[in-house]
Amino acid sequence: MNGAVAVVGLGPGAAELITPEAQSALDSATDVVGYAPYVQRVVPRPGVRYHTSDNRAELQRAQLALALAAQGRHVAVVSSGDPGVFAMAAAVFEAMEGAPQWQSIPVRVLPGITAMLAAAARAGAPLGHDFCALNLSDNLKPWSLIERRLCAAVSADWVIAMYNPRSRARPEGFGRALGLLRQHCEPQRLVVLARAVYTPQESIRVLPLSEVHADMADMQTLVIVGSRQTRRVASYVYTPRWGG
Amino acid sequence: MNGAVAVVGLGPGAAELITPEAQSALDSATDVVGYAPYVQRVVPRPGVRYHTSDNRAELQRAQLALALAAQGRHVAVVSSGDPGVFAMAAAVFEAMEGAPQWQSIPVRVLPGITAMLAAAARAGAPLGHDFCALNLSDNLKPWSLIERRLCAAVSADWVIAMYNPRSRARPEGFGRALGLLRQHCEPQRLVVLARAVYTPQESIRVLPLSEVHADMADMQTLVIVGSRQTRRVASYVYTPRWGG
Repeated sequence: MNGAVAVVGLGPGAAELITPEAQSALDSATDVVGYAPYVQRVVPRPGVRYHTSDNRAELQRAQLALALAAQGRHVAVVSSGDPGVFAMAAAVFEAMEGAPQWQSIPVRVLPGITAMLAAAARAGAPLGHDFCALNLSDNLKPWSLIERRLCAAVSADWVIAMYNPRSRARPEGFGRALGLLRQHCEPQRLVVLARAVYTPQESIRVLPLSEVHADMADMQTLVIVGSRQTRRVASYVYTPRWGG
Repeated sequence: MNGAVAVVGLGPGAAELITPEAQSALDSATDVVGYAPYVQRVVPRPGVRYHTSDNRAELQRAQLALALAAQGRHVAVVSSGDPGVFAMAAAVFEAMEGAPQWQSIPVRVLPGITAMLAAAARAGAPLGHDFCALNLSDNLKPWSLIERRLCAAVSADWVIAMYNPRSRARPEGFGRALGLLRQHCEPQRLVVLARAVYTPQESIRVLPLSEVHADMADMQTLVIVGSRQTRRVASYVYTPRWGG
């Protein structure tokens, strides 16, 4: 039997957002590899081996998946959201790049609903015009690059979706980002704070920038900073399709 | 009966990428409203009314959906991809903003797999690091704003996903964007041209910027321009999680 890897997007948390394609890959896997809370989302099946690891261990997890596939296993690497957006797909290709013996293993990436799409949908349509996605974690890039990207995004009036705004290990980044935004944006600029979207703990807040505080975000929060055009209508927030 | 609107993302084309949530909304709608080719993707049910319209008529289509909901109908507005990304959700809120009598109608946006996620998954993981999404159509914004955003994205080394790169009505935009990219990026910068993803006509090409020509894209193409870090491994293209 020839092994293979499927990198599977589980979406934000609810079963109703798992695509049939992703479900089918989970149903045929011999091994499921992932960060423990994501593996726990998969309904267990007899005979399947589950391999859980810590959040930070992405590269080792990717190497484990490829090593299992090299032994002929059919491995599902599970990611929250979409595996191609700040998640496991890039880690799998990094692991493959470092190990020529794994470069003939078939890898399929199965898309999922990434956090910013789910958060935007719950709030209305804040991503209705040009937008960018910025990972606020400086684990793997210098903070100076995050600042440069934030400034570029604001100066060209993009809507900005911020992933991983704040964690216990990085409590300061989101506050620094807010400071930078306050220098360049008007105080009434709308900000969406979407936490634990599509779970029973879901909370969606829409506030003007002047009222947003750093402790309003954690690792389960997706933050969307509107453009100059982003506005409210009824209980929704949206960015019109036109710009300028 | 109180009416409501669900703005439903159908994903890129294949049934295996329609979420159970979206399918459920289609199964309970009394009316389906949308651009004809998207309405044709919905499996017909007896008793349901189908309202098709032209591609450009987004605002009128949104108004029709809200007017039907005001009459007590349960309306599914169908969009390709994700309805919140360059699609119908923003148009529905625009229509609502212009008509106070519709502002109490419940509107749910149901997320879908947007074209850039599907295209990225088929190519590997080119969106594995910070990225932006730019609509290259200048129907609703000045071309000067598109140029400003392109330059900002390149200077901050974002990966760029380009929607609607080229149409019969706008044959020149993609060529102008390529010209701009060639001024600022090295010739070997990787570009993904993903056409008709997740349909029988799917084609994925990965080329260095120097070999990309304007006529390689049409309205069914999603273009991803890599960052300086984007690279190939085996038959895949990916952007590492680290940056700088």
